[in-house]
Amino acid sequence: MSNIMKKVSWSSREDDPGVAERTPLLNGTSRQFSSSDIFRIGRLSTVDLEDDKDGSSSELNQTEEIPHNEKLLSVRYESLDYDNSENQLFLEEERRMSLLGFRFLEFKRWLVCAFIGIFTGLVACFIDIVVEKLSDLKYHAVKQSIVKFTEAGGLCISLILWATLNAAFVLVGSLMVAFIEPVAAGSGIPQIKCYLNGVKIPRVVRLKTLLVKVFGVICSVAGGLAVGKEGPMIHSGAVIAAGISQGRTTSLKKDFKIFEYFRRDTEKRDFVSAGAAAGVSAAFGAPVGGVLFSLEEGASFWNQMLTWRIFFASMISTFTLNFFLSIYHGKPGDLSNPGLINFGRFEDEVKEYNLYEIPIFMCMGVIGGIIGALFNSLNYWLTIFRIRYVHRPFLQVAEAVLVASVTATVAFAMIYFSEDCKSLGEEPVEHPLQMFCKDGEYNSMATAFFNTPEKSVRSLFHDPPGLYKPQTLGLFTLSYFLLACWTYGLTVSAGVFIPSLLIGAAWGRLFGICLATSSNSMFADPGRYALIGAAAQLGGIVRMTLSLTVIIVEATGNVTFGLPIMLVLITAKIVGDYFVEGLYDIHIKLQSVPFLHWEPPPTSHALTAREVMSSPVICFKQVEKVGKIVDILSNTSTNHNGFPVVCDQEPKRLCGLILRSQLIVLLKHKVFVERVNSSLIQRKLQLKDFRDAYPRFPPIQSIHVSQDERQCMMDLREFMNPTPYTVPQETSLPRVFKLFRALGLRHLVVVDDENKVMGLVTRKDLARYHLGKHGLEELHLAQT
Amino acid sequence: MSNIMKKVSWSSREDDPGVAERTPLLNGTSRQFSSSDIFRIGRLSTVDLEDDKDGSSSELNQTEEIPHNEKLLSVRYESLDYDNSENQLFLEEERRMSLLGFRFLEFKRWLVCAFIGIFTGLVACFIDIVVEKLSDLKYHAVKQSIVKFTEAGGLCISLILWATLNAAFVLVGSLMVAFIEPVAAGSGIPQIKCYLNGVKIPRVVRLKTLLVKVFGVICSVAGGLAVGKEGPMIHSGAVIAAGISQGRTTSLKKDFKIFEYFRRDTEKRDFVSAGAAAGVSAAFGAPVGGVLFSLEEGASFWNQMLTWRIFFASMISTFTLNFFLSIYHGKPGDLSNPGLINFGRFEDEVKEYNLYEIPIFMCMGVIGGIIGALFNSLNYWLTIFRIRYVHRPFLQVAEAVLVASVTATVAFAMIYFSEDCKSLGEEPVEHPLQMFCKDGEYNSMATAFFNTPEKSVRSLFHDPPGLYKPQTLGLFTLSYFLLACWTYGLTVSAGVFIPSLLIGAAWGRLFGICLATSSNSMFADPGRYALIGAAAQLGGIVRMTLSLTVIIVEATGNVTFGLPIMLVLITAKIVGDYFVEGLYDIHIKLQSVPFLHWEPPPTSHALTAREVMSSPVICFKQVEKVGKIVDILSNTSTNHNGFPVVCDQEPKRLCGLILRSQLIVLLKHKVFVERVNSSLIQRKLQLKDFRDAYPRFPPIQSIHVSQDERQCMMDLREFMNPTPYTVPQETSLPRVFKLFRALGLRHLVVVDDENKVMGLVTRKDLARYHLGKHGLEELHLAQT
Repeated sequence: MSNIMKKVSWSSREDDPGVAERTPLLNGTSRQFSSSDIFRIGRLSTVDLEDDKDGSSSELNQTEEIPHNEKLLSVRYESLDYDNSENQLFLEEERRMSLLGFRFLEFKRWLVCAFIGIFTGLVACFIDIVVEKLSDLKYHAVKQSIVKFTEAGGLCISLILWATLNAAFVLVGSLMVAFIEPVAAGSGIPQIKCYLNGVKIPRVVRLKTLLVKVFGVICSVAGGLAVGKEGPMIHSGAVIAAGISQGRTTSLKKDFKIFEYFRRDTEKRDFVSAGAAAGVSAAFGAPVGGVLFSLEEGASFWNQMLTWRIFFASMISTFTLNFFLSIYHGKPGDLSNPGLINFGRFEDEVKEYNLYEIPIFMCMGVIGGIIGALFNSLNYWLTIFRIRYVHRPFLQVAEAVLVASVTATVAFAMIYFSEDCKSLGEEPVEHPLQMFCKDGEYNSMATAFFNTPEKSVRSLFHDPPGLYKPQTLGLFTLSYFLLACWTYGLTVSAGVFIPSLLIGAAWGRLFGICLATSSNSMFADPGRYALIGAAAQLGGIVRMTLSLTVIIVEATGNVTFGLPIMLVLITAKIVGDYFVEGLYDIHIKLQSVPFLHWEPPPTSHALTAREVMSSPVICFKQVEKVGKIVDILSNTSTNHNGFPVVCDQEPKRLCGLILRSQLIVLLKHKVFVERVNSSLIQRKLQLKDFRDAYPRFPPIQSIHVSQDERQCMMDLREFMNPTPYTVPQETSLPRVFKLFRALGLRHLVVVDDENKVMGLVTRKDLARYHLGKHGLEELHLAQT
Repeated sequence: MSNIMKKVSWSSREDDPGVAERTPLLNGTSRQFSSSDIFRIGRLSTVDLEDDKDGSSSELNQTEEIPHNEKLLSVRYESLDYDNSENQLFLEEERRMSLLGFRFLEFKRWLVCAFIGIFTGLVACFIDIVVEKLSDLKYHAVKQSIVKFTEAGGLCISLILWATLNAAFVLVGSLMVAFIEPVAAGSGIPQIKCYLNGVKIPRVVRLKTLLVKVFGVICSVAGGLAVGKEGPMIHSGAVIAAGISQGRTTSLKKDFKIFEYFRRDTEKRDFVSAGAAAGVSAAFGAPVGGVLFSLEEGASFWNQMLTWRIFFASMISTFTLNFFLSIYHGKPGDLSNPGLINFGRFEDEVKEYNLYEIPIFMCMGVIGGIIGALFNSLNYWLTIFRIRYVHRPFLQVAEAVLVASVTATVAFAMIYFSEDCKSLGEEPVEHPLQMFCKDGEYNSMATAFFNTPEKSVRSLFHDPPGLYKPQTLGLFTLSYFLLACWTYGLTVSAGVFIPSLLIGAAWGRLFGICLATSSNSMFADPGRYALIGAAAQLGGIVRMTLSLTVIIVEATGNVTFGLPIMLVLITAKIVGDYFVEGLYDIHIKLQSVPFLHWEPPPTSHALTAREVMSSPVICFKQVEKVGKIVDILSNTSTNHNGFPVVCDQEPKRLCGLILRSQLIVLLKHKVFVERVNSSLIQRKLQLKDFRDAYPRFPPIQSIHVSQDERQCMMDLREFMNPTPYTVPQETSLPRVFKLFRALGLRHLVVVDDENKVMGLVTRKDLARYHLGKHGLEELHLAQT
């Protein structure tokens, strides 16, 4: 075949004189790129390179390194397997099942989704009520103190009270996160993104995580940090879904013996998607947005029935929240609280827009993109600083407490020095602070700062023009921006949606006021600009587009503004992407997660499976010696999870694939035979044994195999997947990628013409290639 | 491997004594099911069985047959190929392309989507304005006549005028459809569903089809048929997308030489999805609904960037429509006409709902499901009648004209005999007919009948309680139900959305009035029940759930009713599915289209690739004799489209796959060499040659190959896809199905252990198996 091949240049660097001449493609196993082509960057001194094939890495200049792991891929993360292992056990079970059985299974899926919705709604309701109660208590106490000391002097006592209360709440929250369950830190959205993408983040969907998350978020919001309680709802929904769908909790060692069929990655992933959607739905009252969020972030293979179930869970979740909040608010049956954040009713503000406003909105999108990129860059450097210096739990807790106190102090200072007074109108204001204003007036800076962020957002959207002076808004934007940026990444569980919305709403309103001043009140209502600003800011920071549009449209309850919001979000995304990635993606990268994006890098057609795959591969025979299996599984330096099974005769052709987890279960149950050709095989194992062990398969070290047993044989034929997907060695990377991504594979066997095993492609092999500033880059694998 | 296999029973019929004992699985090529297991039903007398493997079909009792083709699969339909043929030409082009080139390509995709949106919006705008003008003229003329003859007597002259006008419009419309482009009949949604599913419906995305569709729908709506103009917009959008994305029109023989990269099935499908979404968006003012419609009906592999582009096209489309309609209505910049159908503003009707209303809504869902099933069954029998007796174009036109006249007559009679008079209130009524009412009053039956269906729907949603008497609504529902059922399937281009909404709104309003009467006006507003009824009826007839929910929510402009609407739609779907399939699915089945659903039949795990595949397969060698290729391509009895390419040495291993279309282009350009080992191969062909020929590849008969040339050789290596996806013979049907569906394959090669070609799985092999009343059924292939 090589006679018709030509030398191909490396596209984006075609004219670069420094590029070495490529060797012909498909022409042997030599690597195509010298180290000057694929840039290898990394913290090499501290990592174990598993995949250092051409030895070029040690040449790298270590002085240029920055001590974070963005340019590495951690091999610590295992993958989830969204491809069913269709072994004989499975096929026989499926064949035994009647049509009625399948119908019943389908019914159970719907039932589980209903429960997911109900519990997610209840958790949201609980968070909402407790946060409201605690905040009320806190602000009440602080207000009383301020009123007392405003005239008598000694306001610093009020400040100390406020800061102490905040610090106390945050102390409790961050202690829980730092010492009980660190994975509950942050919003949890990056973790759920990874899970849905197929990466197993340890402990992310456990009951303990949920509890820490829920109480943690209550503490951080009540503690007055610049955070929201919406992001964590998505994580909470996902944990609830994982728990309910498995019908048991391993943390509490309680197995309800229901839903056992769903105990595998494929089914569990589907329910986790539904849970995440239910979480979005409860957080924003946006069921369709929830479905789109799940799809945008997770599912690769779109299935109609699955989507309906996800939608159903979302609907139930917002309905449950709505229903119980209506009872709590004393108006049962009044279903007007569909989400945790309520943007309020946009009546006149967003009924219509004019054509000439569209360029203005897009300008706001550009601003949002720039501010968002700034936010992300600052947070990026801050996170690297934290990785380097603030990695001890005590330090993390101390930082969180410090931020809480500083937040209170900044807020207090802003209110103290503000001279923006408004008279108490007819509309009720929560916690109006008089401070140094005249009687019958209140401080409008306090409306923004002396409140939960949700209420501040609503106030910026709806309060009548003229409530806020421009300098108040400007100062607020600046200080809140810095606070929010400092806060995200702290060891507390909290989201970034609401702070983004608040920053955006503040500068959006400021923008609207400036417009109105400069153009004779043609743009009378600053509320709509607050909304557009909020969208632009959120888009600039998190960069989701489709689902965010729908979430914001649903949260405003008005579809008229769909097009402007979408344009703003896309503009913000394009502008932001020019500078830096989205916040969640930055944090995923900093965790060195082998995340597979939607598409392979566009310029990766030059790579083939031959270059991408890991080889040589450890294979087993169909009937394999127990001792060999134990030795290979115990080898910590390889730690492979999937093993091709090959035929006994030469040439050793591929005839199946078996997973570490399956081998572990087989070893645990000692499914051994004495001799190779023994026909005394007793079918001892059922699928139930595998399901019972799922997902926490014991480590190989915990399984004792005696010397006698080591001489026995294990017949893998019944348990291996006899028809794994394969590709030839010449398959291009995009083609491998598409197969991998579309089917949610964990292992893809690369075979030669004769069906002999040549290599194995795993998630890490594909995630390694990404598009950098200099073209295609290859990340290093690290054992961290 | 067979020593560990057991005999497996056929699950759902385990206790049936008549079932023959199965042969062991994986144990040879014998078929597993006797004819009593898989029910083979079909019109065997007239069809050519391509796949009659076990000869059992001739035993079937022919007296039970009904003369339609629902139980057959037509082999006439070719498949689209959503898997790129990654041959050397393609890979070299991709490798040559720089990163900037890929970015530019991406930009062009967005540009094409923008154009799709703009043109779809313009077409919608054109249809809307022309229909409105023509209807106005018609109703004005008829009204004048009625006013003139009401007192003078001789109203039958008015009736004749009305009927003649209707018939004239419909005559023009159906003549166009019947004689110029029959594929433009109906709503086009089943055709677009098939296209997105991967079935090539001939001529469905041509310019001629678009023109006939647009003018046809204008004629049928202006002709007063019980039809809507919304469904055809989806088809129109799809045609526009296909046209723009290819940068040329083959009908007009005009090639703009742009967007040449997009000339393949993969890219074209993506744009057609966007076009369909833009069509929904323009029809209902529902951009998110449009995206979901495209995804629900079409895309299997969800891609984030693609979804954003689809969303973009949808947004642009509704915006364009909105913008131009605002200019037309004399209020430029007032963007309040986002779609062709405007449900009007729901203010008080749907602000909130009470919990106790949910069971009531679900009851309405049940009613909608039952009425929908009745509608579908009646239409099903009517369609069979039409297939049997009304297949000549002249008869079809005559039937359409007949229906038009009857529609006018029924409407006239209903108005004539109605005694439901209302006084002209303050709100303006379009075309108020006084008839025999007192002065200052008008006939309320005429509000429903003497109007375009869109306006009638709006009136039923929003007119104040008491406008319609219950008997008026009951009579209207019944007569409109029968008319709409008769109309769907006529040889005119028209949709079924609006008639469904209208029927549902009518009985929903009736339901609301009855509730209000029976329970002391606790349910004061019948408008909300009209909305729920409309949703229930639409759900009962077409059975889409997720996208319909969103479409209705977007069209009402209010998200509060999301949950009730979703519950109603799901109830209607479940109830309806119990009786009969959705209307579109029925029509797809009656066309014998090999449609692949989302999932394989649940009980199909017992089948493996070995049973499913077609074999033996005609293979080519890498360097093949031209004569043999011509002979095989010319063989009309096989008419294969994909040919595995095998190596020259024994054993003949698979080394590629080549398509009929590629061979045709090679033959056309005479890419021949004299001898087998000639190294004088001149690279004459480029991808451009294949793209220029796409999609209308000439038939083999049109290519002249001389006797000398027949002796030459053709080197296929550069053009074949060297890495086709393969599966082993033991792969279960669900696994094959998943691979096929997720990747949008057209051919899947089945290989044995040694990588020798054993068979080929195509769409028809998979679509053949479906779940019938008696378990898994197998459809026959027919040459019709």
